[in-house]
This record gives sequence, structure tokens and C-alpha cells, in this order.
Amino acid sequence: MSSNTFGTLFRYTSWGESHGPAIGCVIDGVPPRLALDEAYIQQFLDHRKPGQNRYMSQRQEKDQVKILSGVFEGKTTGTPISLMIENTDARTKDYSDIKDKYRPGHADFTYEQKYGIRDYRGGGRSSARETACRVAAGAVARLILGPVEIEGKVIQIGPHKEDCQHLWEDFLDQTRKNGSSAGAIAEVIAKGVPVGLGAPVVDKLDADIAKAMMGINAVKGIEIGSGFAAAALPGEVNADQIRIKDGLPHFLSNHAGGILGGISTGQDIVVRLAFKPTSSILHPLQTIDRDGHETEIVTKGRHDPCVGIRGVPVAEAMLAIVLADHWLRHKAQCHR
Amino acid sequence: MSSNTFGTLFRYTSWGESHGPAIGCVIDGVPPRLALDEAYIQQFLDHRKPGQNRYMSQRQEKDQVKILSGVFEGKTTGTPISLMIENTDARTKDYSDIKDKYRPGHADFTYEQKYGIRDYRGGGRSSARETACRVAAGAVARLILGPVEIEGKVIQIGPHKEDCQHLWEDFLDQTRKNGSSAGAIAEVIAKGVPVGLGAPVVDKLDADIAKAMMGINAVKGIEIGSGFAAAALPGEVNADQIRIKDGLPHFLSNHAGGILGGISTGQDIVVRLAFKPTSSILHPLQTIDRDGHETEIVTKGRHDPCVGIRGVPVAEAMLAIVLADHWLRHKAQCHR
Amino acid sequence: MSSNTFGTLFRYTSWGESHGPAIGCVIDGVPPRLALDEAYIQQFLDHRKPGQNRYMSQRQEKDQVKILSGVFEGKTTGTPISLMIENTDARTKDYSDIKDKYRPGHADFTYEQKYGIRDYRGGGRSSARETACRVAAGAVARLILGPVEIEGKVIQIGPHKEDCQHLWEDFLDQTRKNGSSAGAIAEVIAKGVPVGLGAPVVDKLDADIAKAMMGINAVKGIEIGSGFAAAALPGEVNADQIRIKDGLPHFLSNHAGGILGGISTGQDIVVRLAFKPTSSILHPLQTIDRDGHETEIVTKGRHDPCVGIRGVPVAEAMLAIVLADHWLRHKAQCHR
Amino acid sequence: MSSNTFGTLFRYTSWGESHGPAIGCVIDGVPPRLALDEAYIQQFLDHRKPGQNRYMSQRQEKDQVKILSGVFEGKTTGTPISLMIENTDARTKDYSDIKDKYRPGHADFTYEQKYGIRDYRGGGRSSARETACRVAAGAVARLILGPVEIEGKVIQIGPHKEDCQHLWEDFLDQTRKNGSSAGAIAEVIAKGVPVGLGAPVVDKLDADIAKAMMGINAVKGIEIGSGFAAAALPGEVNADQIRIKDGLPHFLSNHAGGILGGISTGQDIVVRLAFKPTSSILHPLQTIDRDGHETEIVTKGRHDPCVGIRGVPVAEAMLAIVLADHWLRHKAQCHR
Repeated sequence: MSSNTFGTLFRYTSWGESHGPAIGCVIDGVPPRLALDEAYIQQFLDHRKPGQNRYMSQRQEKDQVKILSGVFEGKTTGTPISLMIENTDARTKDYSDIKDKYRPGHADFTYEQKYGIRDYRGGGRSSARETACRVAAGAVARLILGPVEIEGKVIQIGPHKEDCQHLWEDFLDQTRKNGSSAGAIAEVIAKGVPVGLGAPVVDKLDADIAKAMMGINAVKGIEIGSGFAAAALPGEVNADQIRIKDGLPHFLSNHAGGILGGISTGQDIVVRLAFKPTSSILHPLQTIDRDGHETEIVTKGRHDPCVGIRGVPVAEAMLAIVLADHWLRHKAQCHR
Repeated sequence: MSSNTFGTLFRYTSWGESHGPAIGCVIDGVPPRLALDEAYIQQFLDHRKPGQNRYMSQRQEKDQVKILSGVFEGKTTGTPISLMIENTDARTKDYSDIKDKYRPGHADFTYEQKYGIRDYRGGGRSSARETACRVAAGAVARLILGPVEIEGKVIQIGPHKEDCQHLWEDFLDQTRKNGSSAGAIAEVIAKGVPVGLGAPVVDKLDADIAKAMMGINAVKGIEIGSGFAAAALPGEVNADQIRIKDGLPHFLSNHAGGILGGISTGQDIVVRLAFKPTSSILHPLQTIDRDGHETEIVTKGRHDPCVGIRGVPVAEAMLAIVLADHWLRHKAQCHR
Repeated sequence: MSSNTFGTLFRYTSWGESHGPAIGCVIDGVPPRLALDEAYIQQFLDHRKPGQNRYMSQRQEKDQVKILSGVFEGKTTGTPISLMIENTDARTKDYSDIKDKYRPGHADFTYEQKYGIRDYRGGGRSSARETACRVAAGAVARLILGPVEIEGKVIQIGPHKEDCQHLWEDFLDQTRKNGSSAGAIAEVIAKGVPVGLGAPVVDKLDADIAKAMMGINAVKGIEIGSGFAAAALPGEVNADQIRIKDGLPHFLSNHAGGILGGISTGQDIVVRLAFKPTSSILHPLQTIDRDGHETEIVTKGRHDPCVGIRGVPVAEAMLAIVLADHWLRHKAQCHR
Repeated sequence: MSSNTFGTLFRYTSWGESHGPAIGCVIDGVPPRLALDEAYIQQFLDHRKPGQNRYMSQRQEKDQVKILSGVFEGKTTGTPISLMIENTDARTKDYSDIKDKYRPGHADFTYEQKYGIRDYRGGGRSSARETACRVAAGAVARLILGPVEIEGKVIQIGPHKEDCQHLWEDFLDQTRKNGSSAGAIAEVIAKGVPVGLGAPVVDKLDADIAKAMMGINAVKGIEIGSGFAAAALPGEVNADQIRIKDGLPHFLSNHAGGILGGISTGQDIVVRLAFKPTSSILHPLQTIDRDGHETEIVTKGRHDPCVGIRGVPVAEAMLAIVLADHWLRHKAQCHR
């Protein structure tokens, strides 16, 4: 089962639980002779790491990445790159109270039902901690993408959109005080993607992006370009008309979000993701335990009031991974 | 490149162009001894087929499916099932005027740029005609799913939501008269899905659903459960609390849309898709031709004013395909 | 289950039973703009087809290939190429006596046990008829390989090696008269393969060749280069020493058969395959029927006394398929 | 590129170089709730480890395996199992003389040509050291196979077959003294494999075994059952006739090696592998360096005179991996 592997040519295989000895990933298919060292990857991890401000979990993971293979004398060798991040701040006792109760909104119930066993410590495999590996893999993916720039930002926190950004800080403060949590919407844009990446019918570029993004913890919705708003537009408005500018095809709008028929147009690729509010909250919630008894749960511990904020670098990484994979696939099939 | 294959165990490989001799698919991994014949598949195709009402394309395809392999004496044999639908109503001349011009909103430009060649007749490979194969594959997938019921419906046409459904007919009439087109939002629900389907991290059930849905022609957005609206909810509202009812776990709400941590909860799986308005419209649009000259295009022919309507059975089929694949995968790993 | 799909980038998906309406395959990942028509593929099929001489089955299949998709105006478009060969000479009555008995050496017993159902007509899915599709796919694969020449020949029939080739005709005549059958060994050589195709550890070029060849009906052994004979050689003899000739690396021998560490060396790739004797023979054999009763069987019908002879073009095709796949994979990862 | 991943459901992804910080693998798709700890895996690694007798490399690796994920409280959780073996005895200086010269018979030349870079230390990725990971993965695979027994042995060393086994010790002593090396043939048998594992046409059980075995370092030939000898047998001898014994189907011989039509028959699965002689020898060999100059090389260091001996547990492991994968695949498709 390829349950933990993403990609066809640029392939990322993830492993690890939140409170085991380490998490990590194996990245296969990376072209040889690309400059790569731990410091380069580390900067992307540092951008994601918790404890940076009061809106983030205070868990003090160092998230120090080690390259265990695939790099020799500072360059990729074309063989699998194994990355490992040791779990240095795993305080198991913090989580012992969730051993037998299912936290609503979490994967506790479904893991238990599926596997008949679960590593309950900190969410185990379902912990957002795993996304550190995706950020690391995304850093490697960017090496393949040359001039492509990928950048994301939060555009909504709770009910407040970007134009009410001045309310975000107070809203999050209040949310935290209430023992509650907030959702968010993020937007990630890739600039400089060449025309032609993607494939018809199944492995469409937008289909692979949708899978990559929906796989990020807490994500419940994905849009490309005008997304849901496109449903309300008349055809002649939604169609991105084409002119010639400086001798090159030039689209007069980008409702398509840079993808037509599953293939990149050369315009910006625009993706939006909806994150649900953090499921770990102090607010008491009704639930059941493993024995089928009704009970209540309060999730203490170090949790971000809004996981969407920390999801942005993960979404950037996943977009890089999808683009790198399709970059190599396009090269294989269509370059002369 | 697995560009045209979907699934790990229940695998659907699609082929064919709108105006070639036929379209079809090969379905591999189907369990043996399931009752299957052409009439069973045909009823799903008939549900999708064009020309049924004035909101659909008047193209009079019979869409008659033939089973070429994998079925013996009315039962599946466990070997690949090859399905073929001949293209009997391909009027090539209707499309000759789009040979050299790129229709805005269509894949003409991107196919040409990617491959340096394209079958321009009726959109070739990018035509929504291919979705007939998905509907056929979905019919086979349903055989595996036993008691699961999958049903979709349109919940918004253009700007009008379900509660203004009485406006839809007039709105579409007017849209057609204007030479314009309309988008739509559809909702597909799977009832009776057992708890435990899915997988952590990469091949999450919702991630695979997102890929399947985003791969449907004209889809630009996907939501699971509360989707984008979840971003605005406080954590304690969005968390689906759990009680015991009739001795079984019972969720008090379904913001999660039936999936937690990438694994089905046993609740209804709820998916929404946004379709952009049909790109083929009579309204003249600015575009360029293959030689890089600016020009204008009007897309005549038999086109649905709102492709979202015909997208519903396709979305149902894709959901069946994803569930059947994960059904088999779950059986492989977790059944005793 | 990818049971009927071969390859990562150049992907061949096969379907069809010996006595169903048709057999065929879908070839995905083919680069665009390659000249391709039915006549080109047909010549490879004609080379394989039965009834050509008295050592072959007298089944008079026309094996007329049809291209159903992926080719437009004589060129590949980059979309899946669907090939179909109709079964025009399927005389079902010839096979009715094997409906309930398991032919020793055939897959009758194992298919029945695995699936609980089987298309018994002519061996159904397990018939060597399927190999026509591989030959067709191989013809397409060759388009990618440019200057590479792939050629196979029989080097042993029954106990008689190539240097006793003058005995082959009499031996086969006698074998046929005895109602018996003969095995064979074939050798396939690919010349002009560039250095660098293959991959470490799992998808080694020789590993993929071994899988491709062992998948051919009746094959029971595979060798690369010196193969089994290498076991008896001292290390200094088996090691292919290297000199410079005309400014280029030049190996003084080719015990490695053109592959070191799973990657092509640029020397000839040399593969040998052992075919068991045809299992369909007039000689009566002890067997059982579906009800578990002991019985005897004589397999009448039109069968090659030595399937190895007709296996040669199939082995050539499979080698082309493996090389084309690795050609594209190498281009993706290692070309600048 | 799935270059370093083997399997469809039971998936083994390998990483690591001989002289990097560690080697390891990720095993995905393992059923939950199987008892597993490091000690269990370690016994298989100890069986393989070097330095055990004078016929093996004196490299003193401890080969101590660590489980980094996927196991909780002594049981598998269904999530990826990450295994790591640190490289504790990597004496880099031993290998510095091969930095610029290509050792004949090794992958030095092909890696350099393919990737333009290579970790030359101890063979890097192409080192047989990687096979420790396969042995570890094979240990996990055996957990799935229940009653199946897999056992291998050497049946030929150099030119001496099993019936001259008394000559092996002197022969290897002499080989070592000569600065030479010897090849070997091994046989691996799996007893108790249920009927029905495998699949038609592409992922035949024997095809997957052939790939798994040919991917082992130094292997140049594979046979199933009577293998190459089958080519010389008449059809009526090679066909394994069937009787009923104790109420069950009983084959009177096993020329097929337990596989018909790519599917297991329930008989012993019999595989033979030919290993070439160790390529690292003291005997001076002609070669070239990276700059294209002719030179000579003598490979010092701690090398087995006959790698085939240490290949046996690796072959056992690979057979277990293939069978476990097909076991799960069969369960998915064919169990009720």
C-alpha cells in the first residue's frame, strides 16, 4: 500500500510518530549533482517550527534535520535521500489522559477502529508533527524547480478575511482565552511555472495538487483559481481570454488559477486551502472511551489555537513536491 | 507515467479521444464472481448521457458500452475488464474551425504547448466525453461496495443556491439565450461506508477523493464536510462530539464529512464540488491562434449550458471508485 | 492491483482472453509526435503470428491490430494509445472438453483455485495469445529507443544446442509425431543501448528485464550475460576488464551482459530465457477434474510443438518495453 | 521513480550508502497487531552478518537494527515501520584508492556515467551492505506468512556442485590464497505456500520473484523449478501430473517449481540463483580512471571470497517479501 508515499518520479515516503524516537522521510528520484546540505533544509524547518510566537504551540522541538543518505560532498548523488528529525521534546506524560478517550475532531477513533491499536502519544502517526517531513521534502523539491517561486499566506482567520487583518490578533487572543480554537484559509501561489506541466484525465496537475493539499492535517477544502466562486460566474467572464504581449501569449485574467485541462498554462498557479479549527481545545467536549462509555474530554497541552497558520509552509512544500514530480515527468515524456 | 490510471488495487485505466473510433477503459483488480453484464453498466451511462433535456448537449451519442474481457458467463473472472464505447456521432466538420484557434477556458492551448500536437476534434482527449468511461468504471466499483449508497445532486446553479431552485430553469434559459453558460455546485453523499477506510498521511481517504473529484472536467473546488465554512467555526462547534446510541458510537454532528485523520468514521461521506461554467459558448472571446496571431472565437456546436449538471453522475462514479479501492486496501491490511 | 500493467513511465496495460471478442492493451506515457500507424505495428505481429510454418500452431488468427486512440494524423499525441486485436478464429467447440479438467502444466488448476471461476476457452487469460499485445506494445517501445537494435534467436531446441541446429527439424518432426512437445532456450541481444539506463537496488535494469522475461508464458529461467556459467568462473576471468579504444571506454569481455550494478554499461545487453515444453500435448496425462475426481486428459487442437520458437519476438518486445521505460526514467532524472 | 521501493501492498523502500552514517528502510502496508521487536529482526541480521567465518568478509559491523516507527508496545500499528542500521565500522581510508578508478565487475563505472557523481566509499549505494535492510524487511514479511517456511542453501561453489561439497572448503581456501574469488548457486525453497498467490500476465508470482532475486547483488541468473533443464525435457515428462491423495490434489512431480500461470500451486516454490564471483579481488585487473586513462587496480579490503554464501539469507528475505506482498494482494481481491 503506497499509503505513505507521494509522487511518481520525485517520490516522498514518510514515516514516524509524534512521540517515537524520530520522524523522517525518504526522497527518491532526485536528480544528481544538486547542491544540498542540512543547513539549507533547516531554514525551511525553522520557518515552520512551533514556539515562534504566541499563536503557535509552545512545544520546543528543535526539529534538527539530519541527512542520512543520498548526499555526498555537498551534492545529491541520485540515490535516495533519507532525512531524520529526532523527537527530543516528547513529554509522554502530557498525553497519558488521552490514552483511552477519543478526542473529537482527532483521528483517535478512526485509527483505533481501523487498526485495533494506536500510538496514542501526541496523536502518534496522525500528529501534525509529521508535516515537518513534508517541509523538508519540499525544500529538496524546490531544488528541481529552478526559477519557480512558491509563496503562501493566511488570507482568513476564523470569520475574518484578509481585509480585516487588524482584528486577527485580538480574535486569536480571545479564542485562546475561551479555550477555543480558530480555523483559517490560506492561499499559496507558484510563480514562474512553465507551461506544460501536468497530464490529462487522471494525473492532472490540479488533481495532484488537490490530493497533496487535502492530505495536510485539518484541511477540509481546496480551490484552484476562482474555485467555488467560479460557479457563480457567467462563462464569458470566467474564460481567461488570450492576447499577445511582448510576443508571448498573455491571459487577460486568471480564473483558471494557472491550469487548463490539468496542464499548467504558464500563469500563476493559485491554490486556496480551508483549515478547520484546531481540534485540541480546553473546552470540554462530549466523547466516548475505548470501552464504549460516554465521557468528557479536555485537551490540555501545547497546541496552536489556529493550525492553519503553521499549515502555510506545509502547503508551500506540498505544492513544490507536486510541481517537482510533474517537472520530471514532463521532461521524461515531452523534452526532445 | 500513470497519467491515465487511477487507483492502487481497484485500478481504472482510461483511453480515447472524443472523435476517434472509440473511448474505453480497463478495470483491473476486480474481485471474481461478481454478477456483471452490459445492461447493468448501461443504466449508469444512460443516466449520464447527453440529449436528455434542453439543458444538456444535443449530441446524440448512444454511448453503448461493450464488455470486451474479464467477464465470463455473466460473472467477473478477476482478470482485467475492458470496456469500450464506440464514437458513433462524431461529426468532425462541426469542429474544424477550432483547429488552429485556442478556445479560452479549454485545454487547447495547454495540450498544444505540452505535446506540440493535439487532436483538436471535439477537444480530443480533454473532452468531457471521457467521463463516460468513469461512469462505467464507477458502476463496476459499486459492485464491491455492497450496502453503500452513493447519491449526488446539484445544489447551486450559477449564483442560485438550492433554496432558489425555482429560478434555475429560467436562469438557464436566459443563459442559453445570451450565448453564455453557467457554473454549478454539486454535493455527493455516500451512506453506509464502514468505519476504517483510508490511510494515514498520503493516501488519506479525503485526499484520494479530492484527487478524483478535481480530475473531473471543469471542477475548480472541493470540500469535505463543512469545508471552507469550517474555517469560520470555533473549535468546539466544529468538533463532532460523540455519544453512544443503540450501543454504538454516534456523532452529534458531521462537520468532518465522515472522515477523520484520512479514515472514514462510519458517518455519511459528504463531498461538494464547484464546476466552472461551460467554456464552449457562443459569446465571442478574444484568443490567439497557433501562429501567435490575435483573433476571436465563437464556439458553436452542441454544448451543455451548465456542465455541472452532467457532472453529478461522474462525481458519484469517482466516489465509488475511490471507496472501492480503499475497501480492497483495507481488507488486505486489516482484515483478519 | 497492477497485475496487468508493466512499467513506470512507458506503461503497458494488457487485457483480454483467448476466446473473448478481442484482446488489447493501453500504452501510456509515449512521447508525442512519433510517427505511428497500424501497418508499422502489424509487421511485428506478422513476425509472431501462428500458422507460418509447420512448427507453429495452425490457428489462423489474422491478428489485425487496430489503433483506437493516442494517434492523430499518423503521429502519437502523448495520450494513451489503445490497441485492439479482434479474436476472429475462436472456435469454442475445440476447447469444450477441457471445461472441467485441469490440463497439467497449464494454469487451469491455479486460476480455478484462485478465482473460483475461469474462462476455460483456450486458456482464457492465461493463453499465450495475450503475447500478441506485448509484441504490439514492443513495437511502440522501439520508437523511443532510436538507434537500439534488439534481436533474438533460438539457441537450443529440446536437448540440441545451436551447434546441432541441423538436428532441430527432425527432432521437432519426431516430437510432433510422438504427441509430445519440446522446450527451448532463446537469446535476445540489445545493441546500442546507451550507458546509464537502470537504477540502483530495486528497479535495476536486469531486475526489470528478469521480471519482464519471467512473465512470458512457459519461461522458467533467465540469465544475463554469463548467467549460471558465471558461478563457475574465477573472479579475475568473470570481471570484464576495461581499456580505452578510440578514446572511449572499451570492455575486454562481456560476462556482465551489459549491466553492472543494475545500470547499463553501453555493451550489448545479453539475455537468455529457458522455455519449458508446450503443455498442450496429445500424450495422455493423469489429472483431476473440478469435482476432485481422478481422470486423464489429451489436449487436442492447434498447438505449437515448441512454444519457445514463437516466444522469441515476445522476448524482443519485452526487452524493448523495459528499455523504453528506463530510457524515459533516465531522461527524467539525469538529463540536464 | 520507484527505483528503491519494492512491492505493491507490502512495500519496502530502501536507503543508505555503505559508508554514510546509516542504512535503513521503510516498510509500509504491514498489518497491525503483529508482535515485533528489534530482537526478532536482529536474529535474521545476525544470520547474515559478516565476520562469522573465514569465508566471509572480516568487516566487523554490528548491524544493530533500530525500530524508529510503526511499532507500539511490541506490536505493529499498521503505520510505516522505519528500520535503521548505523554504519559503525566504516573505515573510509580503506577505500580511498578506488576514488578515481573503476573496479571491473563493480558499479563504479555505471554510477559515474549515469549520475556524474558517486559515493565511492565502499561502493556507496551499490554495496552489498544494503542487503542487510532486505534481510530486516524479510523478517517483517515472515510475520505475514504464518505457516510458510522459507529456507535456502548453497548448492554449488565455483565449479563444485553439492555432491562435491567436501571440496568446497579447500577450494575456497585456495581461491583466497590466489587473490581470486568464486561464484555460487543457491536454492531457496518456500514450503506451505497456499494455492492462489500471484496474478496473471504481468505481476506473475514467478515474475516478481525473478525481479526480487535478480536485484540481489551479483546475481546473474534465476530459475524456477526445473528452470533451464526444462528446455531439454519432453512435454509429458515436464508436465506435473495430478492425482488425489488424502482427498486433496497431489502433484506427482514439481518441474513447475510450485507456480503455474504465474499463480502458486500449493507445492514447494523452488528458486535457484546464480551468483557471479566476488568482484573485489587482489588479482590485479586492467581498468581506466575517471579521466579516461588506462590503469590497473587491486581491490584490497575485507571481502568475502564468495558472496553467494552471504546471499542466501538475502534471497530468503526477498522471497518472503514477494510472498507477503502477494499474500495481501490475494486477500484483497479474492477473499470473501
